Amino acid sequence: MKLLIIGGSDAGIAAALRARELNNEISIALLLADEFPNFSICGLPFYVSGETPNWRDLAHRTEFPNIEVLTNHTATAISPAEKIVHVTDSVGAEKRMAYDQLIIGTGARPIVPDLPGVDHPLVFPLHTMHDSFRLHDRITEKGPRSAVIVGSGYIGLEMADALVHRGLTVALVGRSPAVLPTVESKLGRLIEDELRRNGVRVVSGTAVERITDTGGGIAVSGGGGAAIAGEIAVLAVGIRPNSELGAAAGVHASENGALCVNRHMRTNVETIYAAGDCVETWHRILGANTWLPLGTTAHKQGRVAGENAIGGNREFQGSLGTQVVKVFELAVARTGLRDAEAAAGGFDPLTTFSEHYDHKAYYPRARKLVIAVTGDRGTGQLLGAQIVGHWQSGVAKRIDVFASALHHGMTVEALNDLDLSYTPPLGSPWDAVQMAAQEWVRAFKSAASTPGGG
Amino acid sequence: MKLLIIGGSDAGIAAALRARELNNEISIALLLADEFPNFSICGLPFYVSGETPNWRDLAHRTEFPNIEVLTNHTATAISPAEKIVHVTDSVGAEKRMAYDQLIIGTGARPIVPDLPGVDHPLVFPLHTMHDSFRLHDRITEKGPRSAVIVGSGYIGLEMADALVHRGLTVALVGRSPAVLPTVESKLGRLIEDELRRNGVRVVSGTAVERITDTGGGIAVSGGGGAAIAGEIAVLAVGIRPNSELGAAAGVHASENGALCVNRHMRTNVETIYAAGDCVETWHRILGANTWLPLGTTAHKQGRVAGENAIGGNREFQGSLGTQVVKVFELAVARTGLRDAEAAAGGFDPLTTFSEHYDHKAYYPRARKLVIAVTGDRGTGQLLGAQIVGHWQSGVAKRIDVFASALHHGMTVEALNDLDLSYTPPLGSPWDAVQMAAQEWVRAFKSAASTPGGG
Repeated sequence: MKLLIIGGSDAGIAAALRARELNNEISIALLLADEFPNFSICGLPFYVSGETPNWRDLAHRTEFPNIEVLTNHTATAISPAEKIVHVTDSVGAEKRMAYDQLIIGTGARPIVPDLPGVDHPLVFPLHTMHDSFRLHDRITEKGPRSAVIVGSGYIGLEMADALVHRGLTVALVGRSPAVLPTVESKLGRLIEDELRRNGVRVVSGTAVERITDTGGGIAVSGGGGAAIAGEIAVLAVGIRPNSELGAAAGVHASENGALCVNRHMRTNVETIYAAGDCVETWHRILGANTWLPLGTTAHKQGRVAGENAIGGNREFQGSLGTQVVKVFELAVARTGLRDAEAAAGGFDPLTTFSEHYDHKAYYPRARKLVIAVTGDRGTGQLLGAQIVGHWQSGVAKRIDVFASALHHGMTVEALNDLDLSYTPPLGSPWDAVQMAAQEWVRAFKSAASTPGGG
Repeated sequence: MKLLIIGGSDAGIAAALRARELNNEISIALLLADEFPNFSICGLPFYVSGETPNWRDLAHRTEFPNIEVLTNHTATAISPAEKIVHVTDSVGAEKRMAYDQLIIGTGARPIVPDLPGVDHPLVFPLHTMHDSFRLHDRITEKGPRSAVIVGSGYIGLEMADALVHRGLTVALVGRSPAVLPTVESKLGRLIEDELRRNGVRVVSGTAVERITDTGGGIAVSGGGGAAIAGEIAVLAVGIRPNSELGAAAGVHASENGALCVNRHMRTNVETIYAAGDCVETWHRILGANTWLPLGTTAHKQGRVAGENAIGGNREFQGSLGTQVVKVFELAVARTGLRDAEAAAGGFDPLTTFSEHYDHKAYYPRARKLVIAVTGDRGTGQLLGAQIVGHWQSGVAKRIDVFASALHHGMTVEALNDLDLSYTPPLGSPWDAVQMAAQEWVRAFKSAASTPGGG
């Protein structure tokens, strides 16, 4: 059997490794459009910042035993009837590669907004290895003193941190009312405070309309505000699925372009699977498909696709949209649904915000976490949680406890039944996660017992 | 209704607070043998170390609104037929206090082994506030330069850390083959390395037989080894349930003295509940009672007892024995069953040990965690996990992810389905927890497919 995989990032590599782990007989080939198999694109901000000086260290792995990794090979078309992928190889020659089973893991690409000036040479998108080389080299060689970052999602935030680390003066311009629209804006404003504490000029609620040349630099403007000038601009306004190759082969795609798969990661086209940032994601709480491009999800989906493509029968257990980002000294994490997402998903959400120490206050260096908990007013079911706190205060792993609870459909109240660890330097007898759950339950009961409440 | 609670530590206070939260009408009184309601005895090592300079800060809370807290009141007997508790009050007067519902939360006390020399004035047990005052004052006033700690459980380890912090030369003598017998000895030896790196002399596998006066100090000896001398000795050889009061009133107790309760925290005597270190604990994985005295469990049991004593119907969801301790720069955590405990509980355990970075190695300061995973060879069910790593490497909260998985009876393999958070400074696309699970699954499958294996 010939398993062919298009894409050599998280989903493609996870699929190849899983298939090889389960079956040592089949042939596995993997096409990679560039020369960087299984590089951590989540690590690019740290290469730009200088914290990871050698870009080669960004490889999740460098050995792919018994997997044929074809770098600089671009798949140009798929002929499902013949089971052939048309490929342009590293020297520009056209090839036809036969497959028995095909996995598409073509990922996503940055959105380049249709704005005047967006193709200015001082404007840097950031998604691929080559993008980051270009930005890195510019900073290293020309030493710009200032930058404007367009986009205040997690890549924009990490780039703000990275460029301040490199000594630049940074402005961050975002469309949403507060930075990081994937969390409640109340928490986004805490991140804005942290950005400002580190000298970043934060301009939220501003849709950029044009980028202009200032002679030696650029200026970003929009929303009626004054233009924001910098020596370079970095674009981080989101990504979109790379799904054209699959769609042209007859794979159904959703409105936003993501390829449609079932929970076996199978497309509508026989023997074609797809996984990662190019596909729709089954959301475990919504019980429906959505698009949540995340490396963690790509790994899991790739693993399922790799197993099923060679005859397995495993179901993807769904995404909760769990994510975390470090911004200067803060970490911000979320899992599950925000209040508005829950309402849109047909729930009746109640969201509480509360503050709890990361460990007992009597032990040195206790710091407060701000925790948002969203649950359903009808059933008491936990729907989501968000945490903002110092990056060494267990934010990421505490969101994982919420994620584990969401995975099992727990009520908020049942979080109190979890036997979590405690020692004064690292927690409390009721962990912060549980104290936040108790706050939610109090608000829930009080709303239920108040006339007009609930 | 009069709710009377005997004991003002975690279980008793949790019971009182929960009852008051649910019902503002009943009368709640709480008897406390000393004058320290709801103090964190887990914090005593940090008071001794000087990291928590003011012992008053060890109070979990100082306000108990609408709860009558009677300090220095000792319950001497219970007459269930009359529903009366006999009490000696703070000035030595005898009282009779009537109750409708009674909760016993009398906790535990340190074991003082029956050894020659154990009552020497330079020997310090450590469990109560008064014990720690006595030790603290001795160190502050007399400035001993050396100490021998007897007992290498988690209190012994914390005391070693605390006394080194105070500048003493410390020897730690324990009976078990490696320190911290609640984890696999392979991990215990990693803690021994850390103790030695910090100048502690570690003498494991040695049952102390006598303590002798050396003129100005003491010497501890046993097991044929040389006597270990110090200016003071600290005893931390474990605790036993304070259950005599309940037992004398007709409450059934197990062999080790812990009071028997059902999952509603109800004893065999009508209208008497019990919770905390003085009772048997229902173990969620064993599906049986055991004795696992932990503050976290005492809080949960107290909360259940408080709710049920006033007419509620809540079940204690069980303990997993989750715990964590910080020893110098390391944290050591466990949840669920160790290999031998699993075998004794009727499982067919397989335990793997593997090492994984706490975050992506390309981001600065990545450190390795050592993770033990125990699962059942028959069913693949997760039975327990243990982690040793740097105390700021997410050890405690990662054990909580294992604990959440255990709570829900997950298989080890299903841990891979959890949507856990990832950012390079704080984790990996497959978190260390999941990579350790994958190691276990590989060993499990390889054992199953090897003739004679499994």
